Parts: sequence; structure tokens; C-alpha cells
Amino acid sequence: MAKKLDFWCSYGSTYTYLTVMRIEDIAAAEGIEVGWKPFHLPPIYKRMGWIGLPFVQFPEKARYMWSDLVRRAKVRGLPYHKPSVYPVDNLLTTKVALVAAAEGWCPEFSRRVFHGNFVDGRVIGEADNLQNDLRSLGKNPGEIIRMAESRETELQLNERTDEAVKLGIFGAPFFVVGEEPFWGDDRLEDAVDWCLTHE
Amino acid sequence: MAKKLDFWCSYGSTYTYLTVMRIEDIAAAEGIEVGWKPFHLPPIYKRMGWIGLPFVQFPEKARYMWSDLVRRAKVRGLPYHKPSVYPVDNLLTTKVALVAAAEGWCPEFSRRVFHGNFVDGRVIGEADNLQNDLRSLGKNPGEIIRMAESRETELQLNERTDEAVKLGIFGAPFFVVGEEPFWGDDRLEDAVDWCLTHE
Repeated sequence: MAKKLDFWCSYGSTYTYLTVMRIEDIAAAEGIEVGWKPFHLPPIYKRMGWIGLPFVQFPEKARYMWSDLVRRAKVRGLPYHKPSVYPVDNLLTTKVALVAAAEGWCPEFSRRVFHGNFVDGRVIGEADNLQNDLRSLGKNPGEIIRMAESRETELQLNERTDEAVKLGIFGAPFFVVGEEPFWGDDRLEDAVDWCLTHE
Repeated sequence: MAKKLDFWCSYGSTYTYLTVMRIEDIAAAEGIEVGWKPFHLPPIYKRMGWIGLPFVQFPEKARYMWSDLVRRAKVRGLPYHKPSVYPVDNLLTTKVALVAAAEGWCPEFSRRVFHGNFVDGRVIGEADNLQNDLRSLGKNPGEIIRMAESRETELQLNERTDEAVKLGIFGAPFFVVGEEPFWGDDRLEDAVDWCLTHE
């Protein structure tokens, strides 16, 4: 049985950029299968009684995050231009990612979304961007967005939220190996190591 | 001029254990001088309008922290026994650390405090532990604690709080190189690298 690492991927999370661009290569090199789990953080924060998005509620943390992120992008060898808009409305993008995950093209979709945000200066959640991303992947934007906006996808997203809360997930990127939780791009190596030694 | 890295050290922070035990060796190997900055987080949280200690306010984060901490101790090659009490009353310990920093024995004092907490199962903030730690360092506990409880040390601690808020410090361990902020034991290497390449 293939070793498996679940990657809880949020399209509203800046740090998730660092992981999206490297996780498939790292996992493939170790023979690990990545389970892409697109999810939406705001309902989780609400369920946990948090007042708002951490980086909106705590401006000190947001200031720090931008200092740290530019350094971490450099450590990861990734291009970095500070996104002009934060936070972003990523609900529809997340729903499209759920469709993508079901059809097996979530990794390339996610890389395109974050490359757009951190390299091309495009804002996550703007309709044109989403449609262009889908078109460039050879998809029919109208069809995919219709699926993303369906009742079925909404129910799937709600189930994903329930699952996240049950697993104790409160941020992104987040990894789960078996039941072991790992939070943050800087824990990807720990998660891979756990996968190789415990599963 | 020696390269300098300020280490904001909190005796109420579990992750600070990981840093306290290794920072002096790492800095010495790179010719970097460590400025030990003992500080107290609760008044900073209060000033920023946070409701309480993050790990008390957010039980999901606390649960995760304990999972992560035991793994990170292993990564750092450090012994680990989960402290029986959290959070701890670390105000007097912090004040003693201010005296220790002024006299130049803060590194060994801090290692002793955290070794007691994570290896010997002693609770930070209990009077006996503090006195034993001081005695084992060849200090006169009565004299040091009198200095720690002085008005002068209190003022120094208040100034330290002001300085932390001004620098945007909101957690521990925290490092500052010049004006560049680094949060978390997992950013010590980034801080050292910044010190070597920017200062």
C-alpha cells in the first residue's frame, strides 16, 4: 500500500503558496501519495469561536507574516511578489479545487492559482482569473464553475469542514499522516519523515 | 564589530526550551553574539488586546503544540518529558533572568530552568525550584531574589515590554537582527543566516 500524506490546502492562506509549489516533487521522490484536501478556513474559525481571520484580528502577526513569507519564499527558491489584496475571497476557488481534486488535476490547478497570486499579481477570487486558470488547463470554465457552484460541491465542502474540525485542524497548510497533525509549510519535512517511519 | 542576534526569551513558552538549549552553541560556531532579552508575554498580549494566552484561549492550538513539541525535541536531539503544569507563573523567573542577563549568567540559568521543566519534571515558578537552580549555579538565592523583586528590576521589565511592543514581538522564542524579526525556534537558522549576510 502506498504511503499517504494528506495535504489540507487553503486558497486563502499565503503560506500555502510555499507548499503547493513543492509538495508533489518532494512526495514523489519518497514514493508518497499526496491526498489533496482543499478546505475553507472561515467556517472552521467560526466553529472554534475565533473572532476572525488571525492575520486580520492580529495586525502584529500580519506584519510579521509578510516579513517572514518573503524570506521563506527565498529559502524555497520561489519567486515572490507581495499580493496586492489580503485577505482574499477564496470560496469559489476552493470549490473549484474540490472538483479538481475529484478529477485528479488539483495539483496543477493549485500551482496555477498561487503562481497567479505571487508571480503575476493576480488576485485570488476574481472571476476572470479563475476562468483563465481553468482555460489554460484545458478545462471548460463554465462547466467546471457550474459543478463548483452545485449543491453537491457545497455539501462536500461542509463535510470537509466537519472533518477538519474533528482532526483539530485550525490553519493552513496542514498535513495529516494517519492521525498525526503537522501545521505549516515548515513542518512538511517532519510530516514526510513521519510518513516514512510510522506508516 | 561582533555580529549580534537578540534572543527574546520567555520562561512561560514551551517552544523556548528548544532554543535555549542550542542557541549559544549555534551562535558561537558562527561568531555571533547573542543578546539575551528575558521578557514577559502576558502584558504584551494585554497591550495588543488579545484575550488570553494563545494556548489557553485556543485549546485546538494547545493540543497541536504538545504533538509538535515532542517531535521537535526529537529533531533537536533533546530529552522530553511533558511538563505537568501549563501555563506556568513565570514572572519571578523572568525577573531573575533579567538579573542574570545583567550579570552575564542568563544562558546557564535558562538552560537550568528549562532542563528542570522538561527533564526533571520540575514546575517553573515554584519557589523551591528557583532557589535550587540559583544555588546550583553558585549564587545566593536570597540575594538574587531580592534583586529580582526590586523596583529597579520591575522598571526594567516594564521597559522590556515597551521595547517588545515597539518591535512587534508577540510570541516566543523571538529573534531580532537589526530590525528584522524572526518568530519561533524553527526560524533560528533564518535569523543566523540574516545575521551573517545582512549585518
